[in-house]
Amino acid sequence: MSPMLAGWRTAVEQTLDEQLAAVANPHLRAAMVYSVEAGGKRLRPLLLLSVVAMYDGVIADALPAAAALEYVHTYSLIHDDLPAMDDDDLRRGKPTNHKQFGEALAILAGDALLTDAFAILSREYPEKGAACVQILAEAAGSNGMVGGQVLDMDGENEQYHLETLKRMHEAKTGALIQAAIAMGGLFVTIPETDQTALADFSAAFGLGFQIKDDINDVTKTTAELGKTADKDVIEHKNTFPELLGLDGAIQALQVEIAKAETALNELTVDAAPLAEILAVLKA
Amino acid sequence: MSPMLAGWRTAVEQTLDEQLAAVANPHLRAAMVYSVEAGGKRLRPLLLLSVVAMYDGVIADALPAAAALEYVHTYSLIHDDLPAMDDDDLRRGKPTNHKQFGEALAILAGDALLTDAFAILSREYPEKGAACVQILAEAAGSNGMVGGQVLDMDGENEQYHLETLKRMHEAKTGALIQAAIAMGGLFVTIPETDQTALADFSAAFGLGFQIKDDINDVTKTTAELGKTADKDVIEHKNTFPELLGLDGAIQALQVEIAKAETALNELTVDAAPLAEILAVLKA
Repeated sequence: MSPMLAGWRTAVEQTLDEQLAAVANPHLRAAMVYSVEAGGKRLRPLLLLSVVAMYDGVIADALPAAAALEYVHTYSLIHDDLPAMDDDDLRRGKPTNHKQFGEALAILAGDALLTDAFAILSREYPEKGAACVQILAEAAGSNGMVGGQVLDMDGENEQYHLETLKRMHEAKTGALIQAAIAMGGLFVTIPETDQTALADFSAAFGLGFQIKDDINDVTKTTAELGKTADKDVIEHKNTFPELLGLDGAIQALQVEIAKAETALNELTVDAAPLAEILAVLKA
Repeated sequence: MSPMLAGWRTAVEQTLDEQLAAVANPHLRAAMVYSVEAGGKRLRPLLLLSVVAMYDGVIADALPAAAALEYVHTYSLIHDDLPAMDDDDLRRGKPTNHKQFGEALAILAGDALLTDAFAILSREYPEKGAACVQILAEAAGSNGMVGGQVLDMDGENEQYHLETLKRMHEAKTGALIQAAIAMGGLFVTIPETDQTALADFSAAFGLGFQIKDDINDVTKTTAELGKTADKDVIEHKNTFPELLGLDGAIQALQVEIAKAETALNELTVDAAPLAEILAVLKA
């Protein structure tokens, strides 16, 4: 990671620490801290801050928004791992939240992170708070991430066509990635042509990210992933490798990477931070 | 119920229907609709609309805020009833959400209602959206409702003192009731003295509401309650009747009702709608 992105990540971690310190109940705080500080890549905050930096915005102003985004991402992981959902024991190489704290506290820690994300946005941004909340809530809600999750569950008994699979991933993973880019845009002024290219980038990156995740599930070990491998196959999930074969999925990933690179090349500014983040799909 | 409050309730139901119709996934929508339309009293929306009406605001403007509040209340009931939490089979005389739709969809329906509440507020109120979201998110989040829920869980192995019990209920139930009154205040102009009296009313009403709920748990049947009776006793919950005895709890309820009535008498406007809602504590 470049020193610039590493610096942003440190700043995001610090903002997360500060926000979490405000939780009064020690048990609830411990459960929230455990998952937020489990060592994620902070990909969504970094996408948001990249947009802010590329258009000469002030990184410090956008840190609470980046933290709120990471709260929502973390809540989604905690609830996804629950016994009633994916029933996972391992996340980022550690016991999942409910394994560590019990199911009840895991549910509540997720609920608190989701709710507090909106408290942070509205408290820190009296002016642009409503716009920030709207992007995040629509991406995460019934017609975004949660809707995608239901479509994923529905699909455990059904072989989806490619279009449905894409729509599922668009909602389940893509929406929050696109929200990261869009929220960054609230802190700067972006020329109209660049807005289109950024939307193209985030759509391609979001889909590519999920294809990569599907590929990793079948090609990497549990130790490499930090979560249970071959999970999708065991649960008869709809995935790209299952629908297209492993080679087909790798090809589909290349197509999305190429689309994302084309979009970045169309920008009127230096897209180095986004290009660096895009490189995670090539690893 | 007076024709005025009944009319508001009908308008709230209609707004809820409209908002729920926007959920694209039919399974998710069905699970959300099931609990939202299970026939609650719409107490929190009515508190909000009472404040709007008392200070000559426009009811129609405040309906989306009232609906968002009911979304958050409904999410909290769905998650509270989950097997890992209170493990309840019955709510408002019907099977609980997870009994009807399974645990996974119940968790997701709750998550969607909570998230969509903030989407509604930010979309409908570009101006006062941030203030609305802040009141609701802080009341519902880690230092509000969710924090109170954790304190309630913690207390299953511990006998709380009266002050801790009050603090728990203040967070678990009181915060959202106070948020209803405060959100109503965003739609009108309220003289400063009235603001204090309204805050006093909502604190007393919120606490009284929970004492009443505790009393009902031990004095009413499952059929009368529409949810499992004697639940608190079975689960060794900290309650007012357990701490103060039934007579002591009834006295404590009278104290809160008297405080709430005093506060209403101090207002510079006719408090008829709030007085009507307060009467539910006397039933």
